[in-house]
Amino acid sequence: MRMYDLITKKKHGEVLTDEEIQFMITGYVNGEIPDYQMSAMTMAIWFNGMNDHEITELTKVMAQSGDMIDLSAIAGKKVDKHSTGGVGDKTTLIVAPIVAACGGKVAKMSGRGLGHTGGTVDKLEAIPGYRTVLDRKEFFDTVNKCGMSLIGQSGNLAPADKKLYALRDVTATVDSIPLIASSIMSKKLAAGSDCILLDVKTGSGAFMKTLDDSIKLAQTMVAIGEGAGRRTVALITDMDTPLGFGIGNSLEVIESMDVLKGRGPADLTEVSLQLAENMLYLVGKGTIEECRAMAEKAIADGSAFETFCTMVREQGGDDSVLRDYEKFAQAPYKQEVLAERDGFITKMNAEEIGETSVILGAGRETKDSDIDFSAGLVLHKKFGDAVKKGDSLVTLYTSKEASLKDAERLYREAVVIGDTQPVKEPLVYARVEKDKVEKY
Amino acid sequence: MRMYDLITKKKHGEVLTDEEIQFMITGYVNGEIPDYQMSAMTMAIWFNGMNDHEITELTKVMAQSGDMIDLSAIAGKKVDKHSTGGVGDKTTLIVAPIVAACGGKVAKMSGRGLGHTGGTVDKLEAIPGYRTVLDRKEFFDTVNKCGMSLIGQSGNLAPADKKLYALRDVTATVDSIPLIASSIMSKKLAAGSDCILLDVKTGSGAFMKTLDDSIKLAQTMVAIGEGAGRRTVALITDMDTPLGFGIGNSLEVIESMDVLKGRGPADLTEVSLQLAENMLYLVGKGTIEECRAMAEKAIADGSAFETFCTMVREQGGDDSVLRDYEKFAQAPYKQEVLAERDGFITKMNAEEIGETSVILGAGRETKDSDIDFSAGLVLHKKFGDAVKKGDSLVTLYTSKEASLKDAERLYREAVVIGDTQPVKEPLVYARVEKDKVEKY
Repeated sequence: MRMYDLITKKKHGEVLTDEEIQFMITGYVNGEIPDYQMSAMTMAIWFNGMNDHEITELTKVMAQSGDMIDLSAIAGKKVDKHSTGGVGDKTTLIVAPIVAACGGKVAKMSGRGLGHTGGTVDKLEAIPGYRTVLDRKEFFDTVNKCGMSLIGQSGNLAPADKKLYALRDVTATVDSIPLIASSIMSKKLAAGSDCILLDVKTGSGAFMKTLDDSIKLAQTMVAIGEGAGRRTVALITDMDTPLGFGIGNSLEVIESMDVLKGRGPADLTEVSLQLAENMLYLVGKGTIEECRAMAEKAIADGSAFETFCTMVREQGGDDSVLRDYEKFAQAPYKQEVLAERDGFITKMNAEEIGETSVILGAGRETKDSDIDFSAGLVLHKKFGDAVKKGDSLVTLYTSKEASLKDAERLYREAVVIGDTQPVKEPLVYARVEKDKVEKY
Repeated sequence: MRMYDLITKKKHGEVLTDEEIQFMITGYVNGEIPDYQMSAMTMAIWFNGMNDHEITELTKVMAQSGDMIDLSAIAGKKVDKHSTGGVGDKTTLIVAPIVAACGGKVAKMSGRGLGHTGGTVDKLEAIPGYRTVLDRKEFFDTVNKCGMSLIGQSGNLAPADKKLYALRDVTATVDSIPLIASSIMSKKLAAGSDCILLDVKTGSGAFMKTLDDSIKLAQTMVAIGEGAGRRTVALITDMDTPLGFGIGNSLEVIESMDVLKGRGPADLTEVSLQLAENMLYLVGKGTIEECRAMAEKAIADGSAFETFCTMVREQGGDDSVLRDYEKFAQAPYKQEVLAERDGFITKMNAEEIGETSVILGAGRETKDSDIDFSAGLVLHKKFGDAVKKGDSLVTLYTSKEASLKDAERLYREAVVIGDTQPVKEPLVYARVEKDKVEKY
């Protein structure tokens, strides 16, 4: 078998066999297939795509290129969640304890933030003492005890994807649905959960800018998951504007705890409940409606919040900060940004708002940057809200006083005040299950 | 400027600017742009193509990546010829002396054979003493004295093309008309002639298998030549069957001399005359009809043959072999292949026939193989001919007796004898001039 012939096939829109996909990925990982052949292949895939069978095989082979985590030491159905990345997206901190409180098992490895979107691991590390690195046994024990554990990625998950992604990143072949879908799902398959809930963000702050592309990506990932024997559902959720009001690590932990205490922002609460109900549905806790009621009850009776606190203690964290937010480290500098005119917020560029939080110190400019857990923004006006001249649009928090000027300028660029109240977009656009798309 | 952005543009079907093409080729040659980015680009070009302006710029930049030969020391209009490569294609040996005898100047650097097609330089070296390596001054002096000189490629012509072709060859991006056209024409522009006659082969023995693709390639190359200020014409000629009867180095020299003496095969004579008349037309010797008459006269009066002999002597060769073919080294082994049934030749696979000649020793299996100048085939029956059982189809010549068996087997595979006489294809399908295509 020669890589040259596989490139020729794909270039002509033909379907690669399982053996060919195995040969290609194995050869690429062990260095027998050079980067320049693989990049010609990824460009051919960019143009001609892959069918669901090819994508599923590619995903499996990439998953099997490294550790395949065996979660069988954890009793019950395990459900994973993946978000394609958003600004102010702290839903993992909310849905995991809701699901755990209702009897689902969440053994979840999360990533760090890079660029304009944050990462769950960074947010968790804002909690004093919280350990995001556990060994395998501690991880399993924590899930068996608390119903959940949130840790950083460990082990050698899907190294083929790592190598392929790095190549795609420099050859303009990232934005290919088969390649995005297989990249995400290879890590999810390797992570070992029985069920997978996908949160595909759509809009200006998301990787997928249009609803059609988002649905296509969701369908592809659902097909991969189901093809690999994992029950999988995807929600398409809005990322034209940030989710909730807080952006920044401790600010997002605080807002998440507010939701678990039943006093969080409506948009964040609603999206979290829809994600949680679907995760409970996936692990077989009942119909969507029944699962919704269970999730709401876990907030109302405080069990979700207590589940989270128990896990935090179990992983060495100080859960008193979750009850008394004043105990979080406080940013030494803060500044309001005031509206310069009357009107309505007609546009919020989520990506630029994410970048504002990075300028303030909440994210990483490079992989090695340090994070300021107290830095970030709290929005006061969101898309569609009426504003009067002089109203506070946002409060900026930082340890770097000099960053406030740049942050304010960028925030003003990101937010447009117009004359006419715009129509609000839905929070959740669609739900994708195997062979089924429901648009809302 | 970033190569990443150029790949993105081409991937989306956008047009690259002159500056972008310069950046890309210069960066690739000096190693700043890695192979894996260039192969993603060539695949994007394979899918989305390039417009004539982009292709012309690409060609110019590749030409200028090395030596640009200045032929101004040669008086008069210089005309070059390029064939996309065929089996038994010895037309350069015929048309160059015809054109020179009529006052055109042919300062031509040719290549060696590789694979199933031969090379002019190998054929010339079958003439005892003939020097295919001349220094620049000897080359110019020979053209000034004889009207022509045929030598091997020297100098550093279009190194960008060399590097890019090697990459395309392993990434399945050779078969892209913009890339083929710019590759060929970059070397022609660097070689310095004022006018260029292109012989685009079409059919089973050619790189371009269909007439439409051949015309498209011809149009693209003509546009490049004219865009770079060189008068350019292309003929689309048949390569379903080999040209003439002789295949192999001294066998092809002999057949060429037969044409120059007015007793060559009809197909080879006709194609050569059409090529020569167009070369004379390009250097401004008159209308096509006038040029045709001049070319015929140069054969009839022996001036073309004498011109060739003069050049051979000038370059150290023994021209007595051209008058007395017995003086050529003779192959020690020869064998007839006889028809096994009555019928008509309904198919000749030129590519397989070319491979037969390589087996016999006339070509190179690898770049470093030695050539047996006496080896080859002389066809006795060609496409459309009637045959009786026991007729000789071909005579095989070789110094390697053991090769005869394989050669016979492959030749039998290449030639099909059927019941019905097929319709002969035209020798020349079309002529392409600037903004003009004439189909015959």
